[in-house]
Amino acid sequence: MWHQQVIQLAPRKRGFHLVTDEVRGAVAELATVKVGLLHLFMMHTSASLSINENADPTVRGDMERFFRETVPENAPYYQHTLEGADDMPAHILAVLLGPSLTIPLAKGEMLLGTWQGIYLGEHRDHAGSRRLTVTLQGEAR
Amino acid sequence: MWHQQVIQLAPRKRGFHLVTDEVRGAVAELATVKVGLLHLFMMHTSASLSINENADPTVRGDMERFFRETVPENAPYYQHTLEGADDMPAHILAVLLGPSLTIPLAKGEMLLGTWQGIYLGEHRDHAGSRRLTVTLQGEAR
Amino acid sequence: MWHQQVIQLAPRKRGFHLVTDEVRGAVAELATVKVGLLHLFMMHTSASLSINENADPTVRGDMERFFRETVPENAPYYQHTLEGADDMPAHILAVLLGPSLTIPLAKGEMLLGTWQGIYLGEHRDHAGSRRLTVTLQGEAR
Repeated sequence: MWHQQVIQLAPRKRGFHLVTDEVRGAVAELATVKVGLLHLFMMHTSASLSINENADPTVRGDMERFFRETVPENAPYYQHTLEGADDMPAHILAVLLGPSLTIPLAKGEMLLGTWQGIYLGEHRDHAGSRRLTVTLQGEAR
Repeated sequence: MWHQQVIQLAPRKRGFHLVTDEVRGAVAELATVKVGLLHLFMMHTSASLSINENADPTVRGDMERFFRETVPENAPYYQHTLEGADDMPAHILAVLLGPSLTIPLAKGEMLLGTWQGIYLGEHRDHAGSRRLTVTLQGEAR
Repeated sequence: MWHQQVIQLAPRKRGFHLVTDEVRGAVAELATVKVGLLHLFMMHTSASLSINENADPTVRGDMERFFRETVPENAPYYQHTLEGADDMPAHILAVLLGPSLTIPLAKGEMLLGTWQGIYLGEHRDHAGSRRLTVTLQGEAR
């Protein structure tokens, strides 16, 4: 079986956000898969998807603080500056963290580890809703 | 349906290069897929694949400038130096940016966002042609 | 065909480790695939999977030395510190390097380049065995 749909994540402020439940809730067909893979693909070049710790919100804060320090705004060598000081760092973070995830599925559920969740990395200061293309494949239950 | 082939990208100088059209043009079977996934896998450990902004070439230049600054040549602690000052930074960039992409397909086309393109990251000074294994799967149209 | 299993990698010390043979040896069904994809998914948020140079062990050492320098312990802005100085850097490395790999398969073998191998990135000081969910799909031979 194959299933494909576009989902829109609610707009978020710059930083890292746990979106596991929002993704799961948007893809009803998850429940119909016996064994398979879920592919999530971010349709934007200034936001990212990653898998990280799902419990302590300070992890999300520390991620943002680390990347603000490591991927600076206003680096003297940036030439792509017309869209704002947050734009070039957002493109860099989008490739460092990545635009997509592939997650194993079994018995209608994502097979995540106990402490794993899906992070949206929102790397712009004033972004709107982010679109993901969801592609699900597998054997039906 | 499954389709697999090896494609060779034209040699490029060190830096980031937009290769969306080159990839699309090399995989004729793309046109036959109703819904599916395209998997691209770099067969080398000193080049990368990523998804980034497809319009302004200064983004590609800024990416290269950022990574030259962040992943230095000749770090005092490098021991893998026999193959040149560009070699160890190339291995580091290959894992930071990643060796592969999975891209959703629908109606014979890659489902990329408006501003998204495929970047080849060429991280060596004098590399030749890079080989990608392309694996395509899906439902036929 | 679909096949899914959980494998446990032997515990390793902090650093990068070549695990290609350990993964291949644990997935007997690899041999039955004519064309397909192997998906490996790390069930933890403080270890990673990547593809890198399989020959010279100094590459693994240089990777660890680079990331110890680039992703510091005890950054003054870290708030997630209860689980030890190695914990927050481990979460950062897990997302920079990534939790999963998708590797093309043909004629019962992983289609890796001559110099490519699978690295386990163990980012904690005292971790146990790491669990991977392996999902294999393709056409049978």
